[in-house]
Amino acid sequence: MAGDHVTLLNFWASPFGMRVRIALAEKGVKYEYGEQDLRNKTALLLQMNPVHSKILVLVHNGKPACESLIIVQYIDEAWKDKAPLLPSDPYQGALSRFWADFVDKKIYDLGRKIWTTKREDQESAKKDFIDSLKLLEGELGDYFGGETLGYVDVALLPFYCWFYAYETIGNFNIEADCPKLIAYCKRCLQKESVSKSLEDPQKVSDFVVMMRKKLGLE
Amino acid sequence: MAGDHVTLLNFWASPFGMRVRIALAEKGVKYEYGEQDLRNKTALLLQMNPVHSKILVLVHNGKPACESLIIVQYIDEAWKDKAPLLPSDPYQGALSRFWADFVDKKIYDLGRKIWTTKREDQESAKKDFIDSLKLLEGELGDYFGGETLGYVDVALLPFYCWFYAYETIGNFNIEADCPKLIAYCKRCLQKESVSKSLEDPQKVSDFVVMMRKKLGLE
Repeated sequence: MAGDHVTLLNFWASPFGMRVRIALAEKGVKYEYGEQDLRNKTALLLQMNPVHSKILVLVHNGKPACESLIIVQYIDEAWKDKAPLLPSDPYQGALSRFWADFVDKKIYDLGRKIWTTKREDQESAKKDFIDSLKLLEGELGDYFGGETLGYVDVALLPFYCWFYAYETIGNFNIEADCPKLIAYCKRCLQKESVSKSLEDPQKVSDFVVMMRKKLGLE
Repeated sequence: MAGDHVTLLNFWASPFGMRVRIALAEKGVKYEYGEQDLRNKTALLLQMNPVHSKILVLVHNGKPACESLIIVQYIDEAWKDKAPLLPSDPYQGALSRFWADFVDKKIYDLGRKIWTTKREDQESAKKDFIDSLKLLEGELGDYFGGETLGYVDVALLPFYCWFYAYETIGNFNIEADCPKLIAYCKRCLQKESVSKSLEDPQKVSDFVVMMRKKLGLE
């Protein structure tokens, strides 16, 4: 919309922030980017997200939206004339929401468990992580739930640039178990909306190794 | 829709199931009800929710939908001609989703913490629970986010019939701190869609006390 003013408050390595960046890129929305410090939250951030004080906020014409999947859906509805992300059919919409929620509950949580634990806990997380990716793989066509990039793709793809960190720390190879899923991620990276929204896997991995040291795990 | 076949697989005390019951009642949808056993999951349930194997499933013309807030949104879109639950404005929709998510993250989790813990942990959960209810109270008009019963109301109201259990086990009084919220719940209970979907607080409390005994907390 002409005259729109959009600002994204984000922390660069956040896969949740990358979701919003992909969605804005798909819609062709120009925005200001406000990198936030994990430990020193700005007054603007606290004003825009007083309930959870979490970093990711989209501010559209002065009004804040929080929580990545809610923001992505908001973007889809507010800029509805281009690149629809959620299907219009109610049942297909419910399926998309189910799998995006699955990504939050399994891929994010288990990925985090891989890099924040050791030994048995880490082994168990790796196994559950691969099992969850295989379940997702079973749902995969050209994209998830459609013939163009959509809501589930936006929810999942940011984790692809975290895979190298999980693999390095967990000493395993995701492609060996899930070749179809990795081929899909590589195919999606050919889209500029995705490639310019995801961070360098090596930089993410260095960040995660640094966080592990802070947690006393290295 | 004429010729629809709708089945709800549910466990009676589930606040998540009550959300779906309110939504179906608001839309005037007739359905079959399949009470499930927490410990002996039926073949139908496992077939309809193979990913999470959780009890709450809405089966509409043979197609399953899972996760309560996703089901409520599905109901809203599939039966869209009556009693809209989510606002059509994208930003108001984002706000409704934010507060429904808040109910999941705070009211459910803290309520559960109240009845599954003791002493300091329980005291801390009670304080956070009241603080969260007060935050909600600050958002309250006649309903949450509109002039008719909507998505956030459907998300929140089922917990009202759990309040007595929390109060009995935690030895505190919610109305003393949140009179406006309790007045709102009582007002909503005058609607048949709500009153016939919520369970008897005494029956819920008896169930929770029985669960605490099983957990070795009584």
